[in-house]
Amino acid sequence: MRDLDRQETYLADRRGLALELRDLVGTGPVPAETYPAPHAVLGYGEGWFAAQASGLPDWTEEGTLFLLEGGYDLGEAAALGILAESGRVRVVRVGFREGVEVYLPPSPLSPYRYLRFLLLATGQEGALKEVDEALLKERRRLTPEVPLEENPAKFLAYTLLERLPVFYAPFFRPLEGAAQSLFARMGKSLSLTPPFNALEFFLTGLEARHEQGDPLAAVLLGSGEAAGLAKEILETRVDAIAEVPPPEGSRLAQAMALWYRLAWTAYYLALLYGVDPSDPETLERLREAT
Amino acid sequence: MRDLDRQETYLADRRGLALELRDLVGTGPVPAETYPAPHAVLGYGEGWFAAQASGLPDWTEEGTLFLLEGGYDLGEAAALGILAESGRVRVVRVGFREGVEVYLPPSPLSPYRYLRFLLLATGQEGALKEVDEALLKERRRLTPEVPLEENPAKFLAYTLLERLPVFYAPFFRPLEGAAQSLFARMGKSLSLTPPFNALEFFLTGLEARHEQGDPLAAVLLGSGEAAGLAKEILETRVDAIAEVPPPEGSRLAQAMALWYRLAWTAYYLALLYGVDPSDPETLERLREAT
Repeated sequence: MRDLDRQETYLADRRGLALELRDLVGTGPVPAETYPAPHAVLGYGEGWFAAQASGLPDWTEEGTLFLLEGGYDLGEAAALGILAESGRVRVVRVGFREGVEVYLPPSPLSPYRYLRFLLLATGQEGALKEVDEALLKERRRLTPEVPLEENPAKFLAYTLLERLPVFYAPFFRPLEGAAQSLFARMGKSLSLTPPFNALEFFLTGLEARHEQGDPLAAVLLGSGEAAGLAKEILETRVDAIAEVPPPEGSRLAQAMALWYRLAWTAYYLALLYGVDPSDPETLERLREAT
Repeated sequence: MRDLDRQETYLADRRGLALELRDLVGTGPVPAETYPAPHAVLGYGEGWFAAQASGLPDWTEEGTLFLLEGGYDLGEAAALGILAESGRVRVVRVGFREGVEVYLPPSPLSPYRYLRFLLLATGQEGALKEVDEALLKERRRLTPEVPLEENPAKFLAYTLLERLPVFYAPFFRPLEGAAQSLFARMGKSLSLTPPFNALEFFLTGLEARHEQGDPLAAVLLGSGEAAGLAKEILETRVDAIAEVPPPEGSRLAQAMALWYRLAWTAYYLALLYGVDPSDPETLERLREAT
């Protein structure tokens, strides 16, 4: 098994994604002007999670609609932009598509940057500060030089190795899809998310589980009654349970801190599988096709 | 391997779920009065999919808010009901919780019944008629007496046996979670749904796929550009691809017809695994706990 505390393991990180991960806080475009309120946001691809996390509505009849064009939407974002332009609303296109007003290059770490732009553009500097502080605090124990015993992301990566992770985040369900995305794009790995009725799914979906399957590892993100019930149900049904309690702070800071920890975990998991955590070239071709 | 064309295979269906499946169309409560417009709906548990499919908004300041209390929400539905009652909106609680106005007993097939109630309560008899006709048309080729060669649900169940299904429904993404629910609750089986950026997930998430895993079977629900791209990406990455084109009709009728076909497929899959497709007793206990 590869060792995350040895330097040669990091040779698989050919394009130095660890640096982008480490220096993430404070990066990304900043608004150059003031955007009229009320604000709304629609997010696609890399912009989806930021749109969910921002708490902004997804439509407005006046003010500003931020259209986060983070890819793979088959033109849906552009169509909605045109629709909105025909009303009294100002449309601000952010992303990597042609003709965007605010350019944000593709990266698996862009969700943070879209969120940062949104918070600054809607006058929520205080909320951003809290997010940034939570991420910087997480970072202290997540980078490669922090050894396994003190590094929860390395530890979680070993737990998930050769297992099929199941993500459950009852306090903020969109985090599950964001985790699944990170594990696919950086970890190059499959993972599973439960449907809307997660507890019922855990209770019934593992009954006919046949022998040839991957051992499952449940990752319970956040705390609370639903996470407790899920743990009770899953204890006898999965191979391993990892509880990831949130740090202190606002719900947004908690969600982003957990997202950041999962990004590091996906990074380490790629290294354990011996694959490059950066984007494969095929992704560029998909962007052109959609 | 068990044979879906032999009667003894159906002994596992101890409580006769096949009859409920066959006779589903036209069942469920009907509105006893007229509900003031505008209408909105919030759906939990078994009511979630109907709320998504109905196309109704999820909040209104006046008129009627239908609260579909289909379970496993840890009191969230009740809290929202109280919140809404304090405004000018009438709240109609539908489901199996204590004190509901319209009672709808728990069943894996309830999504149809919640939708039927909603369509009748909001004056959309025409849309319901189209849904019902689509389901009755599907039924002709899905019941146990239709042999494998002419029965697409039996055929799909064999394709998914001992494989991990991945559902993708680009024309109506909530169908994926509904399918995942049906396969857990009736099929007693795990399945996988992609995150918001499904195409990227398909392209990157299967790269580090290790040997011990289940063979994957992609189920592409509906047609169109996104389904075509997914097929291209998945062809070399999964063990089997099942394309399930929608029948003719409105988007709602298409979604419900595919849902119905998946319900039959989950039913047959349970039989192939030799487990009872009806609810396990543990589910009752979960309902009491949440």
